[in-house]
Amino acid sequence: MVDDLMTRIDQTIERNIETYLSWLAKLVAVPSVAAQDFGIKPCASLVASMLNEQGYQAEVVPTEGSPVVYGEGGTGDRTLMFYNHYDVQPAEPMELWVTPPFEMTQRGDKIYGRGTADDKGHIVARLAALHAVRQVLGELPCRVRFVIEGEEEIGSVHLSAFIEKNKEKLAADACVWESGGVDYDGTPLQYLGLRGICYVELSVQTAALDAHSGLGGSIFPNAAWRLVWALHTLKDQNEKILIPGFYDTIQPPSARDRELLAALPDNADNVLKTYGLKSFLKGMTGGVELRRAEVFEPTCTICGLTAGYQGDGIKTVLPAEASAKVDFRLVPNQTPQEVVEKLRKHLDAQGFQDVVINDLGGDHPARTDPDHPFVRLSNEAARQVYGKAPIIHPLIGVSGPIHPFIHVLGMPVTMCGVSYPGAQVHAPNEHIVLEHLIKGIKHTAHIIAEFGESG
Amino acid sequence: MVDDLMTRIDQTIERNIETYLSWLAKLVAVPSVAAQDFGIKPCASLVASMLNEQGYQAEVVPTEGSPVVYGEGGTGDRTLMFYNHYDVQPAEPMELWVTPPFEMTQRGDKIYGRGTADDKGHIVARLAALHAVRQVLGELPCRVRFVIEGEEEIGSVHLSAFIEKNKEKLAADACVWESGGVDYDGTPLQYLGLRGICYVELSVQTAALDAHSGLGGSIFPNAAWRLVWALHTLKDQNEKILIPGFYDTIQPPSARDRELLAALPDNADNVLKTYGLKSFLKGMTGGVELRRAEVFEPTCTICGLTAGYQGDGIKTVLPAEASAKVDFRLVPNQTPQEVVEKLRKHLDAQGFQDVVINDLGGDHPARTDPDHPFVRLSNEAARQVYGKAPIIHPLIGVSGPIHPFIHVLGMPVTMCGVSYPGAQVHAPNEHIVLEHLIKGIKHTAHIIAEFGESG
Repeated sequence: MVDDLMTRIDQTIERNIETYLSWLAKLVAVPSVAAQDFGIKPCASLVASMLNEQGYQAEVVPTEGSPVVYGEGGTGDRTLMFYNHYDVQPAEPMELWVTPPFEMTQRGDKIYGRGTADDKGHIVARLAALHAVRQVLGELPCRVRFVIEGEEEIGSVHLSAFIEKNKEKLAADACVWESGGVDYDGTPLQYLGLRGICYVELSVQTAALDAHSGLGGSIFPNAAWRLVWALHTLKDQNEKILIPGFYDTIQPPSARDRELLAALPDNADNVLKTYGLKSFLKGMTGGVELRRAEVFEPTCTICGLTAGYQGDGIKTVLPAEASAKVDFRLVPNQTPQEVVEKLRKHLDAQGFQDVVINDLGGDHPARTDPDHPFVRLSNEAARQVYGKAPIIHPLIGVSGPIHPFIHVLGMPVTMCGVSYPGAQVHAPNEHIVLEHLIKGIKHTAHIIAEFGESG
Repeated sequence: MVDDLMTRIDQTIERNIETYLSWLAKLVAVPSVAAQDFGIKPCASLVASMLNEQGYQAEVVPTEGSPVVYGEGGTGDRTLMFYNHYDVQPAEPMELWVTPPFEMTQRGDKIYGRGTADDKGHIVARLAALHAVRQVLGELPCRVRFVIEGEEEIGSVHLSAFIEKNKEKLAADACVWESGGVDYDGTPLQYLGLRGICYVELSVQTAALDAHSGLGGSIFPNAAWRLVWALHTLKDQNEKILIPGFYDTIQPPSARDRELLAALPDNADNVLKTYGLKSFLKGMTGGVELRRAEVFEPTCTICGLTAGYQGDGIKTVLPAEASAKVDFRLVPNQTPQEVVEKLRKHLDAQGFQDVVINDLGGDHPARTDPDHPFVRLSNEAARQVYGKAPIIHPLIGVSGPIHPFIHVLGMPVTMCGVSYPGAQVHAPNEHIVLEHLIKGIKHTAHIIAEFGESG
C-alpha cells in the first residue's frame, strides 16, 4: 500500500518533469546576486508568486537586507519546514561560462545556470515534490512552512533576527535543509551539520593617493606590501592558523563522529580530477585523515586580493590602498564573534593597527543528532528512492544559517537535494544532472509522505 | 645681443602660447595607452603629421611593438637630439578624474589630462621651442633629430634594438631628455641619471578551476596564499630585499654624488603633504639620508595584486589563480637581467617553483657626468629662464631608456621640462601648471639657441 503510494508519487514526478524544469528556468532567469544587490527584489516576488500559484499563503517579509519569502500551507498536527534561499553567488568571471549564467540551458544530461545547484534547483525540488504528493493524495498530509531567504550567499546577515522575531510563527517539528544530493557514484548524501563561517575584508590605506613607483618605492609605505605582510602573519605554509587562541574553543570529533567518518567512501581521486589538482595539502592522499581534515579543521582562506594595477602589461604605480577577502570556516564550538576579536588583537599585536577589519557576516557551526527519528525517516526515504542507504556525514565543510534552526527553533535538520560534487557551485558553469533533479524531487516527496504518515 | 635674442625668443613663445596649447589638446585627445594597446597607432600618426607640419622630415618606423616616430631637420655641424614618448599610462581608476582624462581641460592655472606632464606636454615643449627659435632666427641654428617612442610606459621594450639598428642615423652630439621641470618652489631641476627598472608579473595557478571555499579550504592549495607566501620572501618589513645577491653589484654613491645630494633642498614636508603621508619609511624625516634612500637604494614595489573575488560583499571562493605586478628599481650597476635570474633562483630555493615569472620589460640604470659642457650649457639656460640656478640631482628615482643614449650613442643627456612634483603623473588628475609650460618651452628654446651658438 505504502509502496504503491510511493510508486504513484514517483510516476507523477516523472510525468511532470518538464513543468518543473520550466519553473527552474523562470527562477534562473532572475539573477538575484546578493553580493551585488542585483535582482534580489524581483526574485523574491517571483518566488512568492510561485508559492501562491501552488496554493500556499506566501508573503515577502522585509528585513534590513534582502526580504525573506515566508509561505505556509497544509493542515494537521505536525509541521515540516523547508529552508531555502533564492539568492545566488556572483557569476563572475563571466567569460568562463559556456552559456549565459542567467539563462537555464540543457546540454546533454546536464542543466546549466547560476543557481541550478545552489539553490534554485532545491526550491523547485521542494515545490515539485509537494505538487506531486498533492496530486496523488488530493491534499498535503501535514502542515508545511517555507523560509526562503535572500542573503545566504552573503552570510544570512538578517536571518537569525528574523527567526528570533518570528519564533512562534515558525514553530515546526523538523526541517529539510536547502541542500543535498548525491556523491560522484550516485549514492545519496546525508549531512548532519555545517561548519560555521566568519567572513571579513581586511583593508589598508597608506596614503591619500597612489604614487609613481619610481618616486616612492624606497621611502613611501605601500598598501599592498602592508597587506601581504599582515596576511602572512595569519597562516603559515603548513596551514597552521597563527592567530593566538584560534584553536582554543574547538571540540574535537567524538567517537561516533570518527565511526561515521570511517564509514565514508573515499572520493579523493574524483576530487583531484574535478579540480585538476596534483595533490592535497600536507601530503594527505585520502582516507579518514583527509575526511577529518576536510571538515573538522577550521580554515583561513584568502577568497580575493585587490591592489593597484591589475590590467594588462605594466603600470608603475605604488598603491595607496589594498584589500583582501578572508573566509574562516569554523568547527564546533568556535563562534564568528570570537574570531573577529582574536583577529583584531592579533593584528594589533603584530603591528598592523593600520589593517582595518570589515566584518561581512558569519554563521555559527551546528549539528543534528545522527540518531534522531527524523534523521532515520529521511535516510529511509533516501534508501527507497536511490536504492541504497545514504552516506552519512557527521559534519560538512560548507556553512549556512543552520544554528538558529537547531538551537532557536529546536528542530532536527536533514539534507535532501539535487546537487553532486561536480556541480561547480560558486564557480562558472554551475549545473545539475537531470537524473539527480528527478531523484531529489522524489526523495523530498517521500520524506513529506512519510512525515505525514508518521504523525 | 644674445640677451636681446633670448628676449625675442621668450616674447615669441608668450605670443604663441594659445597655439602651443592647441597642439597639446590635440595630442591629449588621442589616448595612446601602451599597456592596453589603446590608440597607439593613431597617436604615432598624429605626432608624425605634427612634425611634418612644422617642416621636419618625419616617419613612423615600425618595431615589433609600438612604432617609433623619427624626425629630423635643420642644418649645421652639430646635432641636438630630442628623446620623447607619445604613449601614456592607463587612466584607471577612471572615476577619480574630475574631468575626462583624454580631454585637455584648463581649470585655473592648471592644465589637466593624461599625458600633460608625462610626456605629451614635453613633445609640445620641444616643438614650440623650435618653432619660436625659427621665428626669431629665420632658421634653426643646428641639426635636430627626434626619437619619439610609444612604449616608454611599458618598459621601452623595443627601443634599444631600434637604437642599435639605427646607430649611424641617430648620431648626435647631445640629447635633451623627455622629462624635467621645476620643484615645488619653482626652482628648475637638472637630473643627471635614471634608476633602472625590472618589471615582472608573478603568477601562480594551483588548480584547473576555482573551488567553493567551504569544500576546499582545509585540503586544497590556494593560489592567493601561495602568492602571499612567495611575496613575503622577497622583502621584509624593514624594506630589506631578501633575494640572495640582490645588492652585490651595487656601486654606492660617490663623494661627488654625496656633495650634490647634500646641496639639494629638503622637500620632505611637501612630499608628505602631497601624498597625505604621516611619515616616510624607516623613520626617515628628510635630509641627505632620505634623499640618498630615495634614489641610491633599489626597490621592490608591489604595483598590483589580483586574486579571486574582488567585488562588493561576499564570495566564498578558493582561487585557482593569483598574480602580482612587481617593480624593481635598480641603481648602478644592477641590470634587469641579473634581477630576473636571481629572483628565479630565490623562488626555486624557497620552494616556489610554482610561481611563474613573466618578464614585462626593463631598463638599465645610467648617468651623465655632472661636469660635461652640455650639462653646463643646459644649466646656464635654466638660470636665464628661471632666474636661478637649477637644483642638480645626480640620480633620480624613476626609470627610462637612457642607457642606450648614454652608452650606445655616447651622448650626454640633460633634462628640461614642464612638470613639477605635484603633477600626479601616473595617477588620476595628471596636470601641468601653465607657467611651468611656458618656462619649459623657453628653457628648451634657450638650450637650442645656445647649442647652435656654441658649435
